[in-house]
Amino acid sequence: MTPTAVMLLSCPDQQGVVAATAAFIAAHDGNIVHAEQHVDPVEGVFFQRVEFELDDFGVARDEIATEFAPVAERFGMRVDLRFTDEPLRLAILASRHPHCLYDLLTRWRTGELHTDLRVVIANHPDHAGLCEHLGVPYEYLPVTPETKREQETRMLEVLGHHDVDLVVLARYMQILSPVMIDAYPHRIINIHHSFLPAFVGANPYRQAHDRGVKLIGATAHYATTQLDEGPIIDQETVRVSHRDDVGGLTRKGRDLETTVLARAVRAHLGHRVLVYGRKTVVFEG
Amino acid sequence: MTPTAVMLLSCPDQQGVVAATAAFIAAHDGNIVHAEQHVDPVEGVFFQRVEFELDDFGVARDEIATEFAPVAERFGMRVDLRFTDEPLRLAILASRHPHCLYDLLTRWRTGELHTDLRVVIANHPDHAGLCEHLGVPYEYLPVTPETKREQETRMLEVLGHHDVDLVVLARYMQILSPVMIDAYPHRIINIHHSFLPAFVGANPYRQAHDRGVKLIGATAHYATTQLDEGPIIDQETVRVSHRDDVGGLTRKGRDLETTVLARAVRAHLGHRVLVYGRKTVVFEG
Amino acid sequence: MTPTAVMLLSCPDQQGVVAATAAFIAAHDGNIVHAEQHVDPVEGVFFQRVEFELDDFGVARDEIATEFAPVAERFGMRVDLRFTDEPLRLAILASRHPHCLYDLLTRWRTGELHTDLRVVIANHPDHAGLCEHLGVPYEYLPVTPETKREQETRMLEVLGHHDVDLVVLARYMQILSPVMIDAYPHRIINIHHSFLPAFVGANPYRQAHDRGVKLIGATAHYATTQLDEGPIIDQETVRVSHRDDVGGLTRKGRDLETTVLARAVRAHLGHRVLVYGRKTVVFEG
Amino acid sequence: MTPTAVMLLSCPDQQGVVAATAAFIAAHDGNIVHAEQHVDPVEGVFFQRVEFELDDFGVARDEIATEFAPVAERFGMRVDLRFTDEPLRLAILASRHPHCLYDLLTRWRTGELHTDLRVVIANHPDHAGLCEHLGVPYEYLPVTPETKREQETRMLEVLGHHDVDLVVLARYMQILSPVMIDAYPHRIINIHHSFLPAFVGANPYRQAHDRGVKLIGATAHYATTQLDEGPIIDQETVRVSHRDDVGGLTRKGRDLETTVLARAVRAHLGHRVLVYGRKTVVFEG
Repeated sequence: MTPTAVMLLSCPDQQGVVAATAAFIAAHDGNIVHAEQHVDPVEGVFFQRVEFELDDFGVARDEIATEFAPVAERFGMRVDLRFTDEPLRLAILASRHPHCLYDLLTRWRTGELHTDLRVVIANHPDHAGLCEHLGVPYEYLPVTPETKREQETRMLEVLGHHDVDLVVLARYMQILSPVMIDAYPHRIINIHHSFLPAFVGANPYRQAHDRGVKLIGATAHYATTQLDEGPIIDQETVRVSHRDDVGGLTRKGRDLETTVLARAVRAHLGHRVLVYGRKTVVFEG
Repeated sequence: MTPTAVMLLSCPDQQGVVAATAAFIAAHDGNIVHAEQHVDPVEGVFFQRVEFELDDFGVARDEIATEFAPVAERFGMRVDLRFTDEPLRLAILASRHPHCLYDLLTRWRTGELHTDLRVVIANHPDHAGLCEHLGVPYEYLPVTPETKREQETRMLEVLGHHDVDLVVLARYMQILSPVMIDAYPHRIINIHHSFLPAFVGANPYRQAHDRGVKLIGATAHYATTQLDEGPIIDQETVRVSHRDDVGGLTRKGRDLETTVLARAVRAHLGHRVLVYGRKTVVFEG
Repeated sequence: MTPTAVMLLSCPDQQGVVAATAAFIAAHDGNIVHAEQHVDPVEGVFFQRVEFELDDFGVARDEIATEFAPVAERFGMRVDLRFTDEPLRLAILASRHPHCLYDLLTRWRTGELHTDLRVVIANHPDHAGLCEHLGVPYEYLPVTPETKREQETRMLEVLGHHDVDLVVLARYMQILSPVMIDAYPHRIINIHHSFLPAFVGANPYRQAHDRGVKLIGATAHYATTQLDEGPIIDQETVRVSHRDDVGGLTRKGRDLETTVLARAVRAHLGHRVLVYGRKTVVFEG
Repeated sequence: MTPTAVMLLSCPDQQGVVAATAAFIAAHDGNIVHAEQHVDPVEGVFFQRVEFELDDFGVARDEIATEFAPVAERFGMRVDLRFTDEPLRLAILASRHPHCLYDLLTRWRTGELHTDLRVVIANHPDHAGLCEHLGVPYEYLPVTPETKREQETRMLEVLGHHDVDLVVLARYMQILSPVMIDAYPHRIINIHHSFLPAFVGANPYRQAHDRGVKLIGATAHYATTQLDEGPIIDQETVRVSHRDDVGGLTRKGRDLETTVLARAVRAHLGHRVLVYGRKTVVFEG
């Protein structure tokens, strides 16, 4: 695997934008290995993810942004430039529920999640042993209504200390304050245990059971200050029936939650997600 | 295929209820070909669908209800008795959208839907030719705000004339009045083009697009006077992406709608659906 | 909807290929509305589908191929150029099974399949009435071992008379001779009622039942002279259980067959399929 | 949760069989909480799973088999009697691949798998640390062609020592000898990384890639001496595309393997699987 650069671009849709970026890369002997684009014809916005090899590229990686700036300016592009051999630094926030945390840890340990896992922060002590076994720093920050503000300050220090790029809420059962969310805009991924926008709020499996639905779902989204309203990254559903009581829905839902959260985290780590408004463009991996 | 009787039973959960019904059938030399049961432990309700062959059964079909009455009384059962060689009489209500109507007609014509299709009623004239070709009576009842009451009266006459057991709203774009709904309690099946309870009301594909969901759904439910709140019979979802505009969602949704509606109609025609409260028990076919 | 041109390109993977095509379009004031590409890194092949608006394009549509020829030659491209306002001419071959035929006819009639349906050819007379009702020419060509060669000659005449671009075998139960297949290379789509390569040959539902599988499938593929070995366009599966006898598998399978065949036909009509070796690249629509 | 008894019954289909079992349970004041049955009309075999509460049951648990014997004899039943408060003893066999092993360990630790996990046996040392952390005995039994016979003897000793009821091959990459398989008939569950019967044998993801399929699958089945031919318990598929190289298929396949294996193990542990011939009846949980 040779290292590659990924550019995530968005700008007003206009003629020549694909050609300009491709010409820039070709002019410096770059080899494009993936390129996906999307146009929202209603909003008139152009989105592109373009990935090219760095090995024989004629511009040093720390000069690419500067060299590309004239193209970006001409088309009014927002540019996000990443290098695949510099994995994102990750923090996982957990509560007592282990399934999403354990799943992410397994995927990280087996190399499936290409990330630099820096820390697990939890408001329960249960997972300290496993994290110690795996060599992952574990910060136990219990939260009560009285200590919430203080603990969030501490949490921000921990995240800052590790220079974290992405925060994943692995069924973290606390609502984050706007200060936290604003510190990591579109960089906090939450998993909600329903097919949003159905069953917002607490106890979605109870709500689903009471309504008698024949499917339950899970939704991975970026956390925003509007609870359960952030841009959706991925969703999935599974069939249920009258045989499934609330416990059965919860058990089936756990598998959904782990699957959907892992897919969303993987998409973000692979630089495949662009946010606009309250929506996302997720290019396939 | 020998003819069979189907008993749909529900009663308070109690000891001996399975044995009593099985003993009744065995005592008359009946052969059970299918038996499914379900207990809702929270509500304490027992549900059963039991199907047995009629050929050597020791009780004539028009005397089974009377003979079974002591058992039913002992356990406080609600009993619905049906015979599979007496298919339900069906009416389909349609508007301009053809996909659900055509799909049901195809399934009926190819023998997949075991029903006595009596009439198609529509507020558009478009489908008259096809119905004529298929030999299905077609009632064109255009509806305007002024004529709605009058046309519903006419519709009830048509349904009554055909002694209809089940009414299917195949994307019938009119809201039925309570009079209609009360005349066919839990016997009118509607298809809603979203995963209820998400996106109730009008234009669910537009709502889904605006929210940026990654799945869309369809829901078949019994019509009640509470719009979009009736007992759900079946649901399904399909993945969508940023590439799907409202038109794309609509096109994908059409396939969902036809599939889910056909499954729900098939379940009802097979006497596999029991309603309690705002929920259903749907035994698999 | 303004008319667009679609270029399906494939060539050895090399630097600058994306830029060259994009630059060609930009140089003539073309506006790219979709562009997808794929590189097979093992085979070293580059594939692209690029769609651009024709309205203000600086080259007349019948000169685009000539103007683009220098680019194509430089990179050794195979080029397939299509215009979306010139829909492909379609023939459907059917036998007695109605479900795939009726589904395609419904999708065509409701405008979902963007095609010029020229003729239905069948070795059974059953569907003549419906086709007449819809105004589609119907050629009844019954086939016996003795008449097969003769009828295929007749079939080729009919297809040639209608200048057909695509032939769809809608559960056409005859094996086509190599002459037929060679006349329409990668332009005959067949639906096989199993998840190929499982259960090749006859009676796949019977085979599936005997093996006790928990899923059944359907496969749409281009017909080749190697039976059931042609490039796969689309596949799907559905859960089954011990409750499904061969009849139940067949019924569930019918829905799969119609869905998968319609998706494959839609992909071909939208110029989204590239064949290489025994595989396909199918860009999403 | 009160303890329950589960009877898995099979016998030639005949009148009165449902009534006889239900009457036995009712006669001893048993309360049936679940009862499912199935008739294979072709083979003429009746299958039933009936679960009833033990608390007020009029027969002690170690006398139920004796008391029920007259009923079983009358109908020629094969009877498997289990108690839900006596969980099955489990052994997991693993190689280097961690995903299925870790997933089962997580589900066991979080209480989702109702089992008495006795031992993990592996031919690689990698997972010893995690098992130690979790308090699960770990037997490292490396296998070479020379030591295979000897190590299988050792393995049988370990399994015997722990009085194991069920052996799960969590991507155990060794073919078991007939001696092993005959020692645990229909009590060894294997996960095969394809939709069997497609792509039997080695490297199914490579085979799938070469064939250009649009779905990949996984199959959980009981191990028999016929490789990849044992009774199938569960299967699942997932969509793939030209974008997925062998590595991508492998990664997507891992999620399938863990999911399908966990579902199959859960079904077996819940006494919901009946084997007949090379097929299974799996009652839903």
